Amino acid sequence: MKNETEGTAVTDTDRRLLLKATAAGIGAALMAAPLARAQEQAASVRVRGEAFAQAHQPKPLPFNSSSLNGLSQRLIDSHWSNNYGGSVRALNETKRRLADALTDRDLPPYIYNDLKREHLMRTGSVVLHELYFDNLGGNGRADAAAQRLLGAGFGEFGRWEAEFRRIANGLGGGSGWVILGFNSQFGTLENYWMADHMHNPAATVPLLVMDMYEHSYHIDFGSAAGQYVDAFFNNIDWERVLARMEALRLSAA
Amino acid sequence: MKNETEGTAVTDTDRRLLLKATAAGIGAALMAAPLARAQEQAASVRVRGEAFAQAHQPKPLPFNSSSLNGLSQRLIDSHWSNNYGGSVRALNETKRRLADALTDRDLPPYIYNDLKREHLMRTGSVVLHELYFDNLGGNGRADAAAQRLLGAGFGEFGRWEAEFRRIANGLGGGSGWVILGFNSQFGTLENYWMADHMHNPAATVPLLVMDMYEHSYHIDFGSAAGQYVDAFFNNIDWERVLARMEALRLSAA
Amino acid sequence: MKNETEGTAVTDTDRRLLLKATAAGIGAALMAAPLARAQEQAASVRVRGEAFAQAHQPKPLPFNSSSLNGLSQRLIDSHWSNNYGGSVRALNETKRRLADALTDRDLPPYIYNDLKREHLMRTGSVVLHELYFDNLGGNGRADAAAQRLLGAGFGEFGRWEAEFRRIANGLGGGSGWVILGFNSQFGTLENYWMADHMHNPAATVPLLVMDMYEHSYHIDFGSAAGQYVDAFFNNIDWERVLARMEALRLSAA
Amino acid sequence: MKNETEGTAVTDTDRRLLLKATAAGIGAALMAAPLARAQEQAASVRVRGEAFAQAHQPKPLPFNSSSLNGLSQRLIDSHWSNNYGGSVRALNETKRRLADALTDRDLPPYIYNDLKREHLMRTGSVVLHELYFDNLGGNGRADAAAQRLLGAGFGEFGRWEAEFRRIANGLGGGSGWVILGFNSQFGTLENYWMADHMHNPAATVPLLVMDMYEHSYHIDFGSAAGQYVDAFFNNIDWERVLARMEALRLSAA
Repeated sequence: MKNETEGTAVTDTDRRLLLKATAAGIGAALMAAPLARAQEQAASVRVRGEAFAQAHQPKPLPFNSSSLNGLSQRLIDSHWSNNYGGSVRALNETKRRLADALTDRDLPPYIYNDLKREHLMRTGSVVLHELYFDNLGGNGRADAAAQRLLGAGFGEFGRWEAEFRRIANGLGGGSGWVILGFNSQFGTLENYWMADHMHNPAATVPLLVMDMYEHSYHIDFGSAAGQYVDAFFNNIDWERVLARMEALRLSAA
Repeated sequence: MKNETEGTAVTDTDRRLLLKATAAGIGAALMAAPLARAQEQAASVRVRGEAFAQAHQPKPLPFNSSSLNGLSQRLIDSHWSNNYGGSVRALNETKRRLADALTDRDLPPYIYNDLKREHLMRTGSVVLHELYFDNLGGNGRADAAAQRLLGAGFGEFGRWEAEFRRIANGLGGGSGWVILGFNSQFGTLENYWMADHMHNPAATVPLLVMDMYEHSYHIDFGSAAGQYVDAFFNNIDWERVLARMEALRLSAA
Repeated sequence: MKNETEGTAVTDTDRRLLLKATAAGIGAALMAAPLARAQEQAASVRVRGEAFAQAHQPKPLPFNSSSLNGLSQRLIDSHWSNNYGGSVRALNETKRRLADALTDRDLPPYIYNDLKREHLMRTGSVVLHELYFDNLGGNGRADAAAQRLLGAGFGEFGRWEAEFRRIANGLGGGSGWVILGFNSQFGTLENYWMADHMHNPAATVPLLVMDMYEHSYHIDFGSAAGQYVDAFFNNIDWERVLARMEALRLSAA
Repeated sequence: MKNETEGTAVTDTDRRLLLKATAAGIGAALMAAPLARAQEQAASVRVRGEAFAQAHQPKPLPFNSSSLNGLSQRLIDSHWSNNYGGSVRALNETKRRLADALTDRDLPPYIYNDLKREHLMRTGSVVLHELYFDNLGGNGRADAAAQRLLGAGFGEFGRWEAEFRRIANGLGGGSGWVILGFNSQFGTLENYWMADHMHNPAATVPLLVMDMYEHSYHIDFGSAAGQYVDAFFNNIDWERVLARMEALRLSAA
């Protein structure tokens, strides 16, 4: 009956999101929210496992590593298995040591915090890498809806792109990330510079994530970071970016 | 009619959240989500203003600064007006300079990024301070629902509290924050150590935020950070923490 | 005989340095260099103890803590015993744990490095605090020799002071240090901004060290960092700064 | 007359140091100290130029870039011209902007400090890169004198090497430096972990410097940082390390 589902209609976007999220093994709780609205009985987000559980598993690449345009299979495979994979293993190991350390009453809190720093670092590395690979594999063409939202958030779409590219180029030769995010406290779309895995904007939902650690490009481009920036833009999966925006039900002001 | 509002019922918690959010001037987009569900026509989150707009205004304290238990009015007023207020002003100034810098084609990207670092820093300071003051002003008693969720996330509630306090004590004499957050990528409740305003866990919704910069306690306690940790716990507004959890519709696994 | 000691004469400054260094328990190897030149037999700098030895002892304040002008005894005593003293104790504890960890073959190197970060942090805190207290206790008046050297290094003395004060004021509300140092690779006198104990200019000899952590001033001034900056300048012991310069045998170009 | 130069004799090591320092264009003030002692009339270290002077020039590689054992010419050339060279240019540019900013009375101090952070970062990058290249190009065999000093500083030489390698391996996949340094405040030889160009041990003279930014190895080894660590050790120029030790007139306790 129409009345029963009003306001909770399953949109085409929701369906696409559901399929993609399942396929990619991505199940961000935030993304689940609008899907939940589409399902009468599934109103809540479950807490999945304990804080200290050592159950992190690498998520498979959501695309064939040989299929990218201008980014080599060797680069992508190494990035995924060594840098991302290494951080997944390190996160589990860190949580194992934290669980032990928590019961050690003689451990000074500042030494405990040395492990918490590793925890923050590895959490950032795992989460950001997952979002990064998940927004690669596309054709680099932003659809109208994403362009409209970014136009609303930045005055015009080109201004968004100019800033995002500038931040990326400025990080060449160092380490860090660039993200476009929705700052949920301010209600704004903003680009953020981050110098390592621990840097993140507060209370912000990442929408487009770009790795600028040198392991993201040196195998292919050496120190020519600008070539990598171009290649990254050519491979953005804008459908994923849009799906993340739609999961938040973002609309222009 | 009962049928018309089924699945979108305005709960008592939603009402409390609505009132508090309005009173406190807090309108986090994420918090708006369950409210939105209560309103048939308001399905989307609006992008509020441009990335570079210099329109940040300090949010009033959600409690009377003389009303806290063991934290002095002088401390709270100074913290709010000088540290938080100073960052609001600095964030506007930084955005003004970024908007200018973006049009300066001769500016090297790494110099542009020096301003983006200030942007990340001030964003963290403003957002985290707002969430911090917003979760102060309570009686420090966690209600059963919050205890149940933290028990699910940490094995038992006491384990959550032990870790949160330990991180806080380990930050004494330095700078930083402790937060309990919902990691939306992992689906876990976790405590995070952060050493400055730029540190934040990726893709995480803050639920309880504690300032450990020395300006949070030195006026009252000098270097006795442990006394501040106790005082903070005595003043947590658990209704706000629970409201943030409910905005995510968190449920135990 | 005059001839025998020519070129290695014990200057008045050397004598003053020797007395002060002895009185204050300060024996920086670099400072020992010109003194060594004055002694025929003592040509070398001894390595004092092992890298992992847990033998750090707090150095007594080189002045009476109640004698400063505009900085209270309570502030200075707390700073010395809690912040500096706490870091001395933490440095010993960290070295004890590093010595153990080095023999643990199952410990992942990145976890070992979490302790090495604490080592870097506490080393910075101990060393910088010792230099800070050692250059306090004076009357704030720079003698002609120091003014001449800073004039040579910065164009004019006032330019040096303007920059040093500006950096200090910009750190208000956060954490960090300001130092004037001699960059031994560049051969320049420069002021440096540092945001925490781990930040330091490479290959640089500190000449004037100023603590900008909030524990340096909040007890006396609350968030009014500018008042602390003025008070610091009124208490600089320029004789110590000059002695550090003379230990390097610095001369204007 | 023998008597006149006693205690200031030019040793063989001084001569070797003088030749190498001249050849490599390295003129660290600290290294100049013992040389100065060898010259009756040159007792002082000159301040070379102003703090804000934009006169930094890249120092040529002290070896042929095709001559290293297991580190490719392409890697070394790219590292020298792009990463080191880029930082030299950026340091000049940053100083130019600082000189302008210092005269701008409307510039908030915290914005001024954004440039001072770039100054600290680029200073570290330039200095550390110069010291790094300067201690490459050797045959990797530590002579007896260096082994004796490191044995004195670490209990045994093997313990020094084990820790240095461990720190390096733990930095794989990230950014940073490892240095062996003489902490002039403590009088100890210690290894230090550093996560970026701004990290440095306080008041410490670098003796052996190792770059662990991914640009140091990715072109040759991809993410296999361990292979780079081995290659680095095979190419250490221990004569340079020893010369730096001798410039300090270090002796075992």
